[in-house]
Amino acid sequence: MAKHIRLKHLHRDKSPIVPGASPGTLDLKPVAKPPAINVISYALDRCEERTLSAPADIPPFLCKPGVTWIDVAGPCDEKTLRELAALFDIHPLTLEDIAHSPQRPKADLYDHYHFILARMVMLKAADDMEAAQLSIILGKNYVLTLHDEPDCLDPVRQRVRRSGGMHRRSGAAYLAYSILDTIVDHYFPVLERYGEFLEELEMQTVTNPSPRTFMQLHTAKRELLDLRRVIFPQRDTVNQLIRDDSPLIPQEVRIFLRDCYDHAVQVMDIVETYREITSGLHDVYLSAIANRTNEIMKVLTIISTIFIPLTFLAGLYGMNFDTNASPWNMPELKSPYGYVGLLLFMLLTGCSLVGYFWHKGWIFAADRESNQ
Amino acid sequence: MAKHIRLKHLHRDKSPIVPGASPGTLDLKPVAKPPAINVISYALDRCEERTLSAPADIPPFLCKPGVTWIDVAGPCDEKTLRELAALFDIHPLTLEDIAHSPQRPKADLYDHYHFILARMVMLKAADDMEAAQLSIILGKNYVLTLHDEPDCLDPVRQRVRRSGGMHRRSGAAYLAYSILDTIVDHYFPVLERYGEFLEELEMQTVTNPSPRTFMQLHTAKRELLDLRRVIFPQRDTVNQLIRDDSPLIPQEVRIFLRDCYDHAVQVMDIVETYREITSGLHDVYLSAIANRTNEIMKVLTIISTIFIPLTFLAGLYGMNFDTNASPWNMPELKSPYGYVGLLLFMLLTGCSLVGYFWHKGWIFAADRESNQ
Amino acid sequence: MAKHIRLKHLHRDKSPIVPGASPGTLDLKPVAKPPAINVISYALDRCEERTLSAPADIPPFLCKPGVTWIDVAGPCDEKTLRELAALFDIHPLTLEDIAHSPQRPKADLYDHYHFILARMVMLKAADDMEAAQLSIILGKNYVLTLHDEPDCLDPVRQRVRRSGGMHRRSGAAYLAYSILDTIVDHYFPVLERYGEFLEELEMQTVTNPSPRTFMQLHTAKRELLDLRRVIFPQRDTVNQLIRDDSPLIPQEVRIFLRDCYDHAVQVMDIVETYREITSGLHDVYLSAIANRTNEIMKVLTIISTIFIPLTFLAGLYGMNFDTNASPWNMPELKSPYGYVGLLLFMLLTGCSLVGYFWHKGWIFAADRESNQ
Amino acid sequence: MAKHIRLKHLHRDKSPIVPGASPGTLDLKPVAKPPAINVISYALDRCEERTLSAPADIPPFLCKPGVTWIDVAGPCDEKTLRELAALFDIHPLTLEDIAHSPQRPKADLYDHYHFILARMVMLKAADDMEAAQLSIILGKNYVLTLHDEPDCLDPVRQRVRRSGGMHRRSGAAYLAYSILDTIVDHYFPVLERYGEFLEELEMQTVTNPSPRTFMQLHTAKRELLDLRRVIFPQRDTVNQLIRDDSPLIPQEVRIFLRDCYDHAVQVMDIVETYREITSGLHDVYLSAIANRTNEIMKVLTIISTIFIPLTFLAGLYGMNFDTNASPWNMPELKSPYGYVGLLLFMLLTGCSLVGYFWHKGWIFAADRESNQ
Amino acid sequence: MAKHIRLKHLHRDKSPIVPGASPGTLDLKPVAKPPAINVISYALDRCEERTLSAPADIPPFLCKPGVTWIDVAGPCDEKTLRELAALFDIHPLTLEDIAHSPQRPKADLYDHYHFILARMVMLKAADDMEAAQLSIILGKNYVLTLHDEPDCLDPVRQRVRRSGGMHRRSGAAYLAYSILDTIVDHYFPVLERYGEFLEELEMQTVTNPSPRTFMQLHTAKRELLDLRRVIFPQRDTVNQLIRDDSPLIPQEVRIFLRDCYDHAVQVMDIVETYREITSGLHDVYLSAIANRTNEIMKVLTIISTIFIPLTFLAGLYGMNFDTNASPWNMPELKSPYGYVGLLLFMLLTGCSLVGYFWHKGWIFAADRESNQ
Repeated sequence: MAKHIRLKHLHRDKSPIVPGASPGTLDLKPVAKPPAINVISYALDRCEERTLSAPADIPPFLCKPGVTWIDVAGPCDEKTLRELAALFDIHPLTLEDIAHSPQRPKADLYDHYHFILARMVMLKAADDMEAAQLSIILGKNYVLTLHDEPDCLDPVRQRVRRSGGMHRRSGAAYLAYSILDTIVDHYFPVLERYGEFLEELEMQTVTNPSPRTFMQLHTAKRELLDLRRVIFPQRDTVNQLIRDDSPLIPQEVRIFLRDCYDHAVQVMDIVETYREITSGLHDVYLSAIANRTNEIMKVLTIISTIFIPLTFLAGLYGMNFDTNASPWNMPELKSPYGYVGLLLFMLLTGCSLVGYFWHKGWIFAADRESNQ
Repeated sequence: MAKHIRLKHLHRDKSPIVPGASPGTLDLKPVAKPPAINVISYALDRCEERTLSAPADIPPFLCKPGVTWIDVAGPCDEKTLRELAALFDIHPLTLEDIAHSPQRPKADLYDHYHFILARMVMLKAADDMEAAQLSIILGKNYVLTLHDEPDCLDPVRQRVRRSGGMHRRSGAAYLAYSILDTIVDHYFPVLERYGEFLEELEMQTVTNPSPRTFMQLHTAKRELLDLRRVIFPQRDTVNQLIRDDSPLIPQEVRIFLRDCYDHAVQVMDIVETYREITSGLHDVYLSAIANRTNEIMKVLTIISTIFIPLTFLAGLYGMNFDTNASPWNMPELKSPYGYVGLLLFMLLTGCSLVGYFWHKGWIFAADRESNQ
Repeated sequence: MAKHIRLKHLHRDKSPIVPGASPGTLDLKPVAKPPAINVISYALDRCEERTLSAPADIPPFLCKPGVTWIDVAGPCDEKTLRELAALFDIHPLTLEDIAHSPQRPKADLYDHYHFILARMVMLKAADDMEAAQLSIILGKNYVLTLHDEPDCLDPVRQRVRRSGGMHRRSGAAYLAYSILDTIVDHYFPVLERYGEFLEELEMQTVTNPSPRTFMQLHTAKRELLDLRRVIFPQRDTVNQLIRDDSPLIPQEVRIFLRDCYDHAVQVMDIVETYREITSGLHDVYLSAIANRTNEIMKVLTIISTIFIPLTFLAGLYGMNFDTNASPWNMPELKSPYGYVGLLLFMLLTGCSLVGYFWHKGWIFAADRESNQ
Repeated sequence: MAKHIRLKHLHRDKSPIVPGASPGTLDLKPVAKPPAINVISYALDRCEERTLSAPADIPPFLCKPGVTWIDVAGPCDEKTLRELAALFDIHPLTLEDIAHSPQRPKADLYDHYHFILARMVMLKAADDMEAAQLSIILGKNYVLTLHDEPDCLDPVRQRVRRSGGMHRRSGAAYLAYSILDTIVDHYFPVLERYGEFLEELEMQTVTNPSPRTFMQLHTAKRELLDLRRVIFPQRDTVNQLIRDDSPLIPQEVRIFLRDCYDHAVQVMDIVETYREITSGLHDVYLSAIANRTNEIMKVLTIISTIFIPLTFLAGLYGMNFDTNASPWNMPELKSPYGYVGLLLFMLLTGCSLVGYFWHKGWIFAADRESNQ
Repeated sequence: MAKHIRLKHLHRDKSPIVPGASPGTLDLKPVAKPPAINVISYALDRCEERTLSAPADIPPFLCKPGVTWIDVAGPCDEKTLRELAALFDIHPLTLEDIAHSPQRPKADLYDHYHFILARMVMLKAADDMEAAQLSIILGKNYVLTLHDEPDCLDPVRQRVRRSGGMHRRSGAAYLAYSILDTIVDHYFPVLERYGEFLEELEMQTVTNPSPRTFMQLHTAKRELLDLRRVIFPQRDTVNQLIRDDSPLIPQEVRIFLRDCYDHAVQVMDIVETYREITSGLHDVYLSAIANRTNEIMKVLTIISTIFIPLTFLAGLYGMNFDTNASPWNMPELKSPYGYVGLLLFMLLTGCSLVGYFWHKGWIFAADRESNQ
């Protein structure tokens, strides 16, 4: 039985939208403790990291030259979110999108910032995948990210810390690109693991299809549908960033975004291929079932067709016509060679039928085929 | 049996269009009483509500600074409609669209007003949904809405009444957006309830498929088709409002409309996913039927294949050959171990066949599988 | 049996095109009498109607102020057509399109006129529909229409005659719009009637599917395909008239055409929905056939499975082993309770099998389901 | 059996492209004799025709006022082709496209000429169709056509010869249009013939479907696919000629090309409809097979279900219990009414089962249906 | 059994992308020896070829007038790649794309060079195909190509060496075109070979379908999917080169690229046709299976239906009613013509049934059909 990898939390149909609520309404669940605010402020020649307890401590960093990355990890309380909104002058609609998860990935351009909403998908240890929402606000000299834990941004942090890297030489837009690129690239190992699962499923469908195999196929189809619903807008988001004529994203970063777009297209390609594969496996399954019905039919037909005439013959000579009443009444019964003759005739009939079926290719067909 | 939620009044195929009628012809059914005209006139510092008996009382409100929302609830008589048309200088085609329901959602830009036609879908108490048409006429400083009862606009009214809210600071376009957004957001709980129904249907298709399940699937497919026919143009309507270069919709409201558009896209996404799910369930149903035919075939084949040869043997020794005519005529009948020997041979034959079927995986297969 | 409504003359595959003919070749069948030429000349304050015998009498009307509508009803002879062409300076290609029917609906813009080709579909008394081609030539102050009889333009004539109506205040373009709109609106009752037919077909497919039902479905599919082939270009034609930057169509008429376009889109929507419905009915039919095969299989299996073992037992005790040869030879035959015991055993076996089938849900399943 | 019309030479999958060859490489098979070069030179008042032996004789014609049509019929040798290329200054890529057949229809605009590649399809006497490639080079005052024999351009030649026709008054572009139009119009009779074949196939699928019918359907599908692959680019080619802003094609000829485009769209429409028809016939075939399996099953089930219980009863009274051993041992055998009673019981059982099947609609259903 | 041609290395799902890696990271496997660097420097009147050991020897060639083609064959080590990057000022993203294989074909325009990534597919001797990645960097006066061995560029090299050819008269862009064109043209023999395989598969599906045939079909579907994934972006790449307004590609080369684009479209056409063919074969296979089930059913039904009534009759006269107890108890047994009469009756019954089946077309149908 192929081990099924569930794509968890990828998509909850439970919509976060409350009809009729005023735009910008934050409908947050209370949280035990305020989220951790990690700040990395860096320029060509320096890089300092701090963990703050409240948004009020952020402004000094923003005044420094270079880029400031404010990373808010874990579920946010309303107070922190409101303070951040005041500090960075965030539009109520952006705030609503940040607070309500899951949302469709998108990119919105505001006057003084770019809002990017993405979905991370990560591979966990025990054949599990987790999905989480990540909001990026790209300003002139800062990047503000908000997300649930865990995240997949550690490689980016490492690269920022490394002095002499691209990050240290580039602005906030490059950092935002770098985060987006990491998110898109994390889809690859997830899809690779899923591809392995599909291969196991294919093997199983071909060799030993059962209703359970069919249900796994059915589930895989739905999960790939969900995956596509997430990745499709993600690709459009990157494309929009490239095309939008925003001064926040310089030309040299657009070249990098183009590369990120290429990767997103590759992800889409793989998902579409997987969808075609599951669709093909569905056909294989149905064909296997049809073949099996065929095989069962053949066994029934062969046995019935051989024995039904023989049984008729046996029944014939089990009749009780009075052999004494007339010499035409079943004279075979009295013939010394009647029984032996009948047995031989039955044998002949049976062999002829077996020969006919062999000729039709219904029996021993497998041997004939492999001898060809 | 999954409880079927009918989408009522969503789409009547009965077209309201009379061929050859002059454009602007109002083909209204007589109504018992004129519809209620509720007026809310508000500005930053005031908000007054009144229920008028006739359109003639509207003009004083329109002269006041701020925004006037004229809400005409319930089926309209021709006189009221003609008076409103004269008052707001409404084009005959707009009038025709208002009078004739159901129409395809759309947005038309006229010289001095924007005409928006939408369809509300609301969840009612007893697993019922209701659909109704809503016409919005957005002018420079007023919004005129006409609709059947009940409506889903109470949350908007509440927000208008609340002093200090966005509405009080914004113009008529924001009010129109707010109404549209409320309509779009009301699709979410409807779809959520429908999603639950589909999950019940899936459970049932997998565990106990019956022709009734199939008919429910068939109905669900048609309803989702209807739903799509309503939502698809609704999304385009919002998009058109964003793109139209109308002075009636200021730039800051377009940002809000963009958010409303995102929600409409999410609704479309969910409907499309539901369609793919019903389509997948159709496959599951057919596969279940094929599996069942298979299973029935197997039982028939197993029983027939075991007993047909045995019956032949029994028939053979029921033959009446004269054992006295020759020693070759059925000598087994006279042998003291004939009967016992035959019974043992029959037992052996039966067991061999059972073993063969077990080897083929036709019997006890479930046990073998679960032991794997 | 659902009464099938045939869409007659909607589309003959017999193409009117003769390969290699010079463009503008008129390949007209001789007609018994020249077609009737009805002229309506009207302005704000007057409206005169005349039936002319030849095109030569038309010019005086064209010189009058206001709009002249020349309506040529019935098949045209070549002489009349040539005279009309000379009079209105009609391009040879337009002439060819008028003469050859059926053509794909289209709109062509020439220097001094707009050529519109449409297909009327009308509901006739006895569940019949008829289709006919209508050519419209829209000039500066005239509209020339040519069509087979009968037409569906009577409502337009009535509205032109009514003094004080829109027509009398508007130009030739409004008259052309009015004709087009009437044609598009005539699709609605036709589709409504077809929708009723589909509902009968659905009822029949669900309750009593027969090969004849399937053939009706198959025919309905093809007819809807034909209908779509006619309506799709009709919609494009209207759209083209809106977009074409022709001075012959003033801005205020474009608003009306936009409404006509909305109706055409609605017609397309309904046709597409009908196509999806027939496609769904096809699935319902196949599923019904599969279910029926299943049911037949079940009856066969139940009867066979119950009686085959019993018949074996009966055959067993019909064997002729010599009970005197040994006490082990069928001692049951001599036992006083042998027969009764065997009958009881057979009863037990039969009941067990019935119980097993009941447990499997193969028999009395309908009752169990309805009790749930 | 429907007579299958093969679309010959329509599309050979054997590609004419040699990988790595220099562009402009002519990989021509040697020909027995140089191709015939027919020249028609015409102006308003004259028309002369000549058959030349070599391209060297062409230049004098090109100097004359009016239009020169150089028609090269039959396979070309390399020498002739090179001389033509030098004479008309033909680009190596154009030369390669002319030499290598079959190619995808296309239109390429060069500095001083338009290169159009089309595929002729003609109906031959004995239910055969033939396809051939035709290259058109449209220059300022000449049209050069190259094609295999036979061609379908005779009607064009006739019209050129006729003094006073459109050709004599128009330039080279009109001649090129005329050739293209003739090619497109030749698709109609071919499709009409194919449509008749499809109707025969439909009749056969409905009344007497056999595996051979299915194979014919399968072949028809592939041929329509090939046809579409040829016609689709042909349509695009005409469209490109209309849109290209080339000085070689005057505005008045574009009007004629628009008409040719309309015809190409009609051809596409018909091919698409045929594809949908074959697809529908596929469903009809499968449904017919399912129905037939059903019918076979029904016969088997009815016969088995009636006789299996009767055979059991007969077997029961064939048992050899010793009636003397006890009065409970088969007392019926000794009863004077035993046999007659049993026969009556068997009759009753048989009739009940027949009644049950009639009630189920399995037998005499056809009669009941037709009586409805 | 059709010999399956595997498209090897066409597409490995193993993605070369490491999530979170810095863009431009080269994750190269160590190689045994540095790759061969072949340089061809040519102008109108000269052509010199050299094999260099390190990139450091390249600059002298770049200074010469004319075009320099630097071809790096075989897997690259990091040192060589870095030196090349420094020499030609290659963007880190380009470097990453070169190093990581397989990538989706694409074309990126940088300031001073055009980066083109393509996939070669070559036919090998023993029914094998191989795919390899090829990177092209097109600069002002040079073309740098990097690829695995073997490559398919020998014909290009030959044409460069030939004095007086197009290459010697043209610039670097023509060389890049020539390489791309060779790659695209190499798809044709591959597809031709694949087409032959599909024809064998079709033959087999029609004459002798087995589950193995189905699996081959399934594999072919997936391979064509992979092929499409490679060719689709290749076509877009060529199209982008034509449309990009880059000074590196002169107008006259664009004409050649247009030809290359036409070839890529033809390749796509063939792949799409092959996909439709495999899809059609799938239908043929399923229909063959359904037909075979039908045939098996027919044999079973015929045999059962003929012998079951006869067996019943035999059983009837095997009953042991006491003929002495009453004259109504089985008087036939004592009749002198009983046995002969019964045999005749049985013969009659059997013949009637055979006649009925013949009438139904279930037996000897093949003969009747071929006699038609």
